[in-house]
Amino acid sequence: MVDLDEFTVTNAALEQMANTANPRLKQIMAAAVRHMHEFVREVNLTPEEWIQGLQFLTAIGQACTPIRQEFILLSDVLGVSAVVNALHDKKAKELGSQSSLLGPFFREGAPVMPMGAQIVEKPTEEELVIHGTVSDTLGAPLANALIQVWQTSERGLYDLQERNGESMDMRGNFRTGPDGRYHFRTLRPKGYSIPMDGPAGALVQAQGRHGMRPSHVHMLIGAEGHRELVTALYFGDDDYIESDTVFGVSQSLVVAVKDDPDSPMQGYRAVRYDFKLGKADPGESGRVGADPTTFMNKAAE
Amino acid sequence: MVDLDEFTVTNAALEQMANTANPRLKQIMAAAVRHMHEFVREVNLTPEEWIQGLQFLTAIGQACTPIRQEFILLSDVLGVSAVVNALHDKKAKELGSQSSLLGPFFREGAPVMPMGAQIVEKPTEEELVIHGTVSDTLGAPLANALIQVWQTSERGLYDLQERNGESMDMRGNFRTGPDGRYHFRTLRPKGYSIPMDGPAGALVQAQGRHGMRPSHVHMLIGAEGHRELVTALYFGDDDYIESDTVFGVSQSLVVAVKDDPDSPMQGYRAVRYDFKLGKADPGESGRVGADPTTFMNKAAE
Repeated sequence: MVDLDEFTVTNAALEQMANTANPRLKQIMAAAVRHMHEFVREVNLTPEEWIQGLQFLTAIGQACTPIRQEFILLSDVLGVSAVVNALHDKKAKELGSQSSLLGPFFREGAPVMPMGAQIVEKPTEEELVIHGTVSDTLGAPLANALIQVWQTSERGLYDLQERNGESMDMRGNFRTGPDGRYHFRTLRPKGYSIPMDGPAGALVQAQGRHGMRPSHVHMLIGAEGHRELVTALYFGDDDYIESDTVFGVSQSLVVAVKDDPDSPMQGYRAVRYDFKLGKADPGESGRVGADPTTFMNKAAE
Repeated sequence: MVDLDEFTVTNAALEQMANTANPRLKQIMAAAVRHMHEFVREVNLTPEEWIQGLQFLTAIGQACTPIRQEFILLSDVLGVSAVVNALHDKKAKELGSQSSLLGPFFREGAPVMPMGAQIVEKPTEEELVIHGTVSDTLGAPLANALIQVWQTSERGLYDLQERNGESMDMRGNFRTGPDGRYHFRTLRPKGYSIPMDGPAGALVQAQGRHGMRPSHVHMLIGAEGHRELVTALYFGDDDYIESDTVFGVSQSLVVAVKDDPDSPMQGYRAVRYDFKLGKADPGESGRVGADPTTFMNKAAE
């Protein structure tokens, strides 16, 4: 009989899992076990800390509801989601525009609007134009691509948070023209705090972090035969552009508001962004996360 | 601006956590983040697998109730609890008997019984004697040490499972005599399956594992000024002695049933075990796990 100590128990666990029928599950769980054991040994985790950790994870699980996914939030604030996204993005980087986190506030079924429409019901601040092209990776324009846009209000809240989502506001879907061009109007969204009223927020507070995301506009872009692109544009002059709590900002997605003689709607300052979509592999989805409607976040206080 | 990729995001996350006020939390979370990121990179986790993993962890959290702790069970079957226990045990090994997992079936307030009593209400099989001494690490007997014993029935079920815990059965508390000696009677307990009706059990099944623990008798031993010892004695001829699903067996805790001329109760076969307790550090608890009454496991079907 092999006597198990803090090292030999790792191989014993891997041996017990060696008959896993699904080879990918076997590979993933073997790596998970090795890393968890190594983590425990590295920090010399005490029984009291172990139980505290399990109680924390239990609280994360129990904070999840049909409209709140606290485990995704935890994964986001620990940078795990960003690592998954970056790995997934490697191919996209070669083949198209960079992606960013989907986040919990996407909604299916936002209204399809005519080009140039204002997505904010009652604009109270300076209106901006966002415009550009959607093309394939060789630069050929993609006509009739669907661009789904969603963002916070000038107060930093999504429609789901401001009015429990009664109306679809600060959202709009647009179709590119035959030249692959798009444009719409919006207000500059405000950055916001992640939900701080659950266990993930409590951790972020204990870590002395601000919990803020910089101002951004989400976009989900799809075109027949191409890789669906989940991304967002980030405003470069935001105070939190260098310290996004969920590590979603990429250099290539940072934009500036400018006077733009090329904007199709003059009289407004503008943001220009040209998207490139890679060809889809058969059966491939470019979307980060499964059905996002199940992860919508509860209205924040 | 540093552009984050699947590697640089790790340092970005560690930097954001650098102001954590509690140094131990900072150390633990930094190691957790490094290992989680490395795990994701190592297996090249896809967005679909990431969401499946988070859904699994959510289900584990939501399976927890006041009488069922599925995260402890998950930690147990992945060997994480055993690593924590082994690390904690390093000191105990030098200073006293080895410990084992507390498990979810301990109950406070079992009856104190006279030495030699039978802990099973209605014994239907061969009665055994378990006897020995409790001493300090120099061999000096510890009088009036409290030995709390609990085990399954000959059917492999704890009282909490067989009759929802209506009565305290297959449990008993004993005090050592002035010579540090103890003895009591019991039946040989049966090994059993961990609860297989939740997400942790589903994982164990997907891994092609039997889910069984070998036959064992739990003991929790305390004496004034000494380290509380959570341990268990394992029957060496059990089919599962080499493949305990929760990795709780240690060589030094394996026992055999014998004819024993030194047993204080002749006419029964006996198991002998001499326990040694280390001196307690001030404020130290030797118990693995916090208040165990919150982790009691629900009655199995």
